[in-house]
Amino acid sequence: MQFGASSLVPAASARTAGFVDRWALSTIVSRLGGAAFRLQLWDGTAQGASTSPSLATVTVADRGTLLRLLWRPALAFGEAYADGRIAVHGDLVALLESINRALAGRPYQRGGPATHRTDPAAARKNVHAHYDLGNDFYRLWLDEQMVYTCAYFTSPGDSLEAAQVAKLDYVCRKLRLQPGETVVEAGCGWGALALHMARHYGVTVRAFNISAAQLAYARAQAVREGLADRVTFEDGDYRTIDGRADAFVSIGMLEHVGSEHYDAIGRVIGRVIDPVRGRALVHFIGRNRPMPFNPWIGRYIFPGAHAPSLGEVLPPVAEAANLSVVDVENLRPHYAETLRHWRERFETHAPDISARFDERFVRMWRLYLAGAEACFRSGDLQLFQIVLGRASDNTAPWTRADLYV
Amino acid sequence: MQFGASSLVPAASARTAGFVDRWALSTIVSRLGGAAFRLQLWDGTAQGASTSPSLATVTVADRGTLLRLLWRPALAFGEAYADGRIAVHGDLVALLESINRALAGRPYQRGGPATHRTDPAAARKNVHAHYDLGNDFYRLWLDEQMVYTCAYFTSPGDSLEAAQVAKLDYVCRKLRLQPGETVVEAGCGWGALALHMARHYGVTVRAFNISAAQLAYARAQAVREGLADRVTFEDGDYRTIDGRADAFVSIGMLEHVGSEHYDAIGRVIGRVIDPVRGRALVHFIGRNRPMPFNPWIGRYIFPGAHAPSLGEVLPPVAEAANLSVVDVENLRPHYAETLRHWRERFETHAPDISARFDERFVRMWRLYLAGAEACFRSGDLQLFQIVLGRASDNTAPWTRADLYV
Repeated sequence: MQFGASSLVPAASARTAGFVDRWALSTIVSRLGGAAFRLQLWDGTAQGASTSPSLATVTVADRGTLLRLLWRPALAFGEAYADGRIAVHGDLVALLESINRALAGRPYQRGGPATHRTDPAAARKNVHAHYDLGNDFYRLWLDEQMVYTCAYFTSPGDSLEAAQVAKLDYVCRKLRLQPGETVVEAGCGWGALALHMARHYGVTVRAFNISAAQLAYARAQAVREGLADRVTFEDGDYRTIDGRADAFVSIGMLEHVGSEHYDAIGRVIGRVIDPVRGRALVHFIGRNRPMPFNPWIGRYIFPGAHAPSLGEVLPPVAEAANLSVVDVENLRPHYAETLRHWRERFETHAPDISARFDERFVRMWRLYLAGAEACFRSGDLQLFQIVLGRASDNTAPWTRADLYV
Repeated sequence: MQFGASSLVPAASARTAGFVDRWALSTIVSRLGGAAFRLQLWDGTAQGASTSPSLATVTVADRGTLLRLLWRPALAFGEAYADGRIAVHGDLVALLESINRALAGRPYQRGGPATHRTDPAAARKNVHAHYDLGNDFYRLWLDEQMVYTCAYFTSPGDSLEAAQVAKLDYVCRKLRLQPGETVVEAGCGWGALALHMARHYGVTVRAFNISAAQLAYARAQAVREGLADRVTFEDGDYRTIDGRADAFVSIGMLEHVGSEHYDAIGRVIGRVIDPVRGRALVHFIGRNRPMPFNPWIGRYIFPGAHAPSLGEVLPPVAEAANLSVVDVENLRPHYAETLRHWRERFETHAPDISARFDERFVRMWRLYLAGAEACFRSGDLQLFQIVLGRASDNTAPWTRADLYV
């Protein structure tokens, strides 16, 4: 079964491809030199490696789409794919991974990310646009605990359910939680980690979120499990977190914070965690080097999102707060595998999703899930788990061996 | 037995302490508010917590020394301690750790480190000043393999010998060395790691160094062990490293490179390691946040040295070379323990060392070893081990569990 193979055939343009179209076709193929795909125009004119039957064919429906691909390739590809002006026959993930690898030699440009608003009001709007699409929608293709972040596969054959539980537990072990301790969680999703911590580690958790749909689900879950006395789900932006806790954790929130607010995260961690033995774990999608976020994803899927490099994150989040970096782990391959599971489940439910939203929505989400998987496979995206501690705390175990018993 | 308890009594000044002296005494004690020590002037005038018998007493011999302590405390303390114008009775490490902790609340100043020359000629001079003091000197207090970097104690009761072997092996496991592979080592000390890699992992190593004394020792050792065909020790600055290798390793060299040359390290790693499966491990003394190097250590012990934060290191070393940060581990407590072992052995041989150099040299090295141990205990210094990989390499194991079998 080939996921991402769209059955859509673009409505062919009436005109035959002319000189300008053939020039644009050549230019695009040559810019992506080395990528394994075949680019085909509306009249059948085609270029690119055509010998291997396993390659994807990308069909462009009209000249306008073709020229936009020249001008702003990432945005134009996403928009045209969503609109059905571009169709892909073949393996969409392999196509996108191959394009990423062909572009990997792009010259390195130091510099900041594109700007995007992430103040409290904009943050609420950004989060609402993605996470409030309906719990029923996410339930179709996430694991049973509704964990919408990178799983941890102790072996790649693990089920998604097992790998998400393994991730929740790995985070608890890295934080070295002890019974009776308190934890603050910033950006708690549907609450799975907070509930896991209370259930298995005997801690009390205050979990913060600004997604109304997620909060409602998480609160109901806490009541259902009899954990409402030890896990409270609070409607609040990370900037409003007060009080003290032994540990701070944030899984998959930093991507939405905006790099101009990383120092605010550092200040929150610095004031919340215990002054002597406090620890923090921050888990986020990152980059090997600073790069702008994919403009199509940033516009249509994750408004306001940015995937930072460690060099962007550590000075404001750790250094300015005089926190010690204890451990950094890159779990990149685990996110590719997580996304493969999500994408397979999503495709299984594509007819339901199309009926509930529409075919355009399905194509957008197919491209988003396939594109993200491709980026984790090609190394365009990374998944960093950072453990921070107080500067003078000498109480951690001598080695990391106990994490792997 | 109390190490660092100097038997020296400063030559007392003839004058009785006056108003200015008492003001200076109060000012210094109040600047170090909270530090557990007693500061005493030449005539017995004293301030500071004096009730606990376990506290160190710092005795200042004259007004000039006292006023210099106000003006440039770190430099003045080191110089006066070396000269015998300051004596410490009590636990020198505990004293310095306590002072570090009292100063830990200093306001954070972003900014670069002090400048210091580390071009190839200066680098040779800097390295010669420290590492060419004589192999016989270092043999007195290092482990039997002469490893002059942080050891790895799987439990704190391990011997220094065992912990250094454990470190060498841990580095090999983190690099995931396979028989037949090639390794480049930049800054190889007396050669222990290169020889360990060849002996136990079946790899071929080119190891670079600019210390003549270390190179002579390492070459002799390779011949003695019958490894000279698989380990070559080359006289060369890291900037001159050419060719290709499967892995790059540098243990305890980055401290001497100078932050203005970190991008050169990144370029060397980027061009040396295999373009598909290359890995690198960089191990260095660092900081939680950018800070100038201790001026006394920088002038008298390690000319040209700097301990950088991760935010200073990762952009030029990893990001500019498009390398992926795979793993960062902070081994800070292990360096405190390593230094404790070194200091105990150093004190055992202090009479020999004094006879070979002089009493001033012994005091300088006592202060350096005790001060470094105190910094690792108080969190003023960190020890980072960074593993880097190629951006698109997906061949690493899924978890780190195999490092701890």
